[in-house]
Amino acid sequence: MSEGGEEQAFSELKAALGPAGFLIGDDIPTRNHADSSVLPPQRPLAVLRPASTEEVSAALAIASRHRLAVTVQGGLTGLCGGATPAPGSLALSLERLAGVEEIDGRAMTLTARAGTPLEAMQRAAEAEGLLFPVDFGARGTATAGGIVATNAGGNRVLRYGMTRASVLGLEAVLADGTVIGSLNKMLKNNAGPDLKQLFVGSEGLLGVVTRLVFALQPLPRWTGLALMAVRDFEAAADILASARADLGPMLSAFEVMWPDYWTMVTENVTGRRDPFAGRHGLYLLVEGHGRDAARDGAAFEAFLEGIFEAGLVEDAVLAQSLADMEAFWAIRDASAEIEPVLGEHESFDVGLPPGEVGRFVEACRSALAHELPDSRAAFFGHAADGNIHVMASVPEPGPAGHHAVESVVYGVTRAFSGSVSAEHGIGALKRGWLGHSRSKAEIALIERLKATLDPHGLLNPGKVI
Amino acid sequence: MSEGGEEQAFSELKAALGPAGFLIGDDIPTRNHADSSVLPPQRPLAVLRPASTEEVSAALAIASRHRLAVTVQGGLTGLCGGATPAPGSLALSLERLAGVEEIDGRAMTLTARAGTPLEAMQRAAEAEGLLFPVDFGARGTATAGGIVATNAGGNRVLRYGMTRASVLGLEAVLADGTVIGSLNKMLKNNAGPDLKQLFVGSEGLLGVVTRLVFALQPLPRWTGLALMAVRDFEAAADILASARADLGPMLSAFEVMWPDYWTMVTENVTGRRDPFAGRHGLYLLVEGHGRDAARDGAAFEAFLEGIFEAGLVEDAVLAQSLADMEAFWAIRDASAEIEPVLGEHESFDVGLPPGEVGRFVEACRSALAHELPDSRAAFFGHAADGNIHVMASVPEPGPAGHHAVESVVYGVTRAFSGSVSAEHGIGALKRGWLGHSRSKAEIALIERLKATLDPHGLLNPGKVI
Repeated sequence: MSEGGEEQAFSELKAALGPAGFLIGDDIPTRNHADSSVLPPQRPLAVLRPASTEEVSAALAIASRHRLAVTVQGGLTGLCGGATPAPGSLALSLERLAGVEEIDGRAMTLTARAGTPLEAMQRAAEAEGLLFPVDFGARGTATAGGIVATNAGGNRVLRYGMTRASVLGLEAVLADGTVIGSLNKMLKNNAGPDLKQLFVGSEGLLGVVTRLVFALQPLPRWTGLALMAVRDFEAAADILASARADLGPMLSAFEVMWPDYWTMVTENVTGRRDPFAGRHGLYLLVEGHGRDAARDGAAFEAFLEGIFEAGLVEDAVLAQSLADMEAFWAIRDASAEIEPVLGEHESFDVGLPPGEVGRFVEACRSALAHELPDSRAAFFGHAADGNIHVMASVPEPGPAGHHAVESVVYGVTRAFSGSVSAEHGIGALKRGWLGHSRSKAEIALIERLKATLDPHGLLNPGKVI
Repeated sequence: MSEGGEEQAFSELKAALGPAGFLIGDDIPTRNHADSSVLPPQRPLAVLRPASTEEVSAALAIASRHRLAVTVQGGLTGLCGGATPAPGSLALSLERLAGVEEIDGRAMTLTARAGTPLEAMQRAAEAEGLLFPVDFGARGTATAGGIVATNAGGNRVLRYGMTRASVLGLEAVLADGTVIGSLNKMLKNNAGPDLKQLFVGSEGLLGVVTRLVFALQPLPRWTGLALMAVRDFEAAADILASARADLGPMLSAFEVMWPDYWTMVTENVTGRRDPFAGRHGLYLLVEGHGRDAARDGAAFEAFLEGIFEAGLVEDAVLAQSLADMEAFWAIRDASAEIEPVLGEHESFDVGLPPGEVGRFVEACRSALAHELPDSRAAFFGHAADGNIHVMASVPEPGPAGHHAVESVVYGVTRAFSGSVSAEHGIGALKRGWLGHSRSKAEIALIERLKATLDPHGLLNPGKVI
């Protein structure tokens, strides 16, 4: 705190942002107290709601001059506490800096302000016959700036990559208010180091993303979806290799569910019916996106025949309708529905070298059974991406129970040279575990970058490092 | 220079790298004097040839202690002087740190040392039934480290992205010898900011890339190729939209040649025959990569029928054999062969928003005709990527003539919010033009990053900034 203290800072912020842009006291909405993580909520000093890049710049310059910390907030759907206000910080919400600015059909780009909801971008693209390639469950609330700041993954990373792969242009504001970057629409731009990469996935440590240009994709015209029961992960890996060879870039999802997850869903959740007779070692959901129903449908069926003939599949059903597709995906997307079955639990989002996924799950299950025999666990995930979700009940309520489960799961993750976060990020929740996936030299370099771009440590303090 | 001067530094470097790793005086090969740019060669103080990451680290630590500048060299195929030694610098060649270390078929990854030639990686991948996705003409000489440090583009960016899109893991050595990064095989890893992005495309300013993990792709089983003559760029843009909608991710190349280039090639270069009768406004080369000859061949022909019926094509030939494919690509790849026709000239590699490509070429041609009436120019490029190559003869030999052509072409590029380098990079050649494509705030941020990672400015001085 300096130059006249909090009162002076607040009066400058109010003048810069106007009454709709500066909320304090009882006007602070409860939603700005926390993101979607299990961490406790925290009321911010005030909520800043700038409506333009210039206002973001002015607000950060004032906060910087007064040495006030700022926690950046998008749609507040993050699961790691990255947007829960640090104690004594201002919340900077991008909700008023929203809207799709342009869709350029020739360039296949969409330009949006940071606060634009993901679903609004998807709809705007679809209205022009194009696909916004990032998609996940929280699409209605998650924002353009949030998906970029966290490099969000989701359902179709296999086909379209993480969010980073779709960011062509990025405008950001540094901690001192400097506006950086440009709304580049070019697919190829090697004029110096690509500065936008600094801000993608850096969870607001280095700057506040304000506007973006995304690359769009052609809208698929046909979707094929099959649910399969197989013997084990080796069979799944062989099927994945066949899918890649036979379907190539048509392959859009390859999801794996282990029997613990499968049984928990099909036996406990309403409307999730097991279409297979008997028990199986592993369940797969395989999706293809194509251009032509007859041609691509035939390719998808030929792929299925091939893996049947190779003896890789114990049983399978091919979706015949939109209702089938929804029913198949509903089994895979039932993680929220099994939360009551597990009781107090922790959700993990680990990344593994894809060849190690099967062995990791066996090792993790066995470590949990050995070290925490009362914990129940369910395993599922995006196998082709090496991204496994683990939901494990805690041996006792409260922080100690969570820490016990984390120790086991992250210990096995480290042993497999995995990542403690494949897609959700580190935030405040996994800060203590970052050293399991990053070397001391890497963490020191992150700290040097932070000190260079934000020398007073005012942006998102207490997150990531 | 400090701590005992050059003699002392040389003796330490020789001890650390051994006789094969430290070349001085007459032992310095001429090839280490320059890369493939038009800039004059420069003999380095000595050539360092470390054979391991540890030796790279030791060499940089010694150079840093003695404040000796280092120019990093890969395959020396760069066109911008990025690897031509800065005066008074050591050359650090990665040629002995070479070889593919591993191909992981399950993870679809290839791990290689920085000095491995691109073609060796392509062959190693193909032997396992997989595709190394980066490809361009200098494949026999360009190296793994070089393509990553420059974020190389090439022939199939449209399908597989720039080199950055295929880098999963990266190990680098900072200016002080610190080894950073990891040989990550994970497609998804959000454990903190993605540090490898700092080194991809930073042209050796921030660190020396030593080892890499690349993502491989399924090997295509079928290729379709058509050469077309069309009226104008508007028709080409409509054909591109159809190709994207009909072929989706099968579309692997969409190359455009303007009549000045086309005529220069087909009238002057042996073996490049014009397959079309009469003159046309623009020529296209459209390629598809597929999985199944019958199915994907039918899709490609259906796409061609569609654009014919829509009246978008004046004439077209479909490759019927490997010989046809080579002949078609030979027209597009004849830039080296028209150099004698142009005489002393400059080659440009500009990036444009894809929707602006047609107007840019008209504006650039007209500006050249108006301001430098004696200059001849040829336009061609990767239209879907917004990457246009311009070859323009200089109005007079020597630096003034080059500067005159650069002023015109980069002036028009700036007016279209384009990039002075889409894929070749900045190096020493385009340093003076970086401000045409990057703001002052962006250049200041590059300088801050440089000062943070290389405080004594020893890595690649005189390049980029």
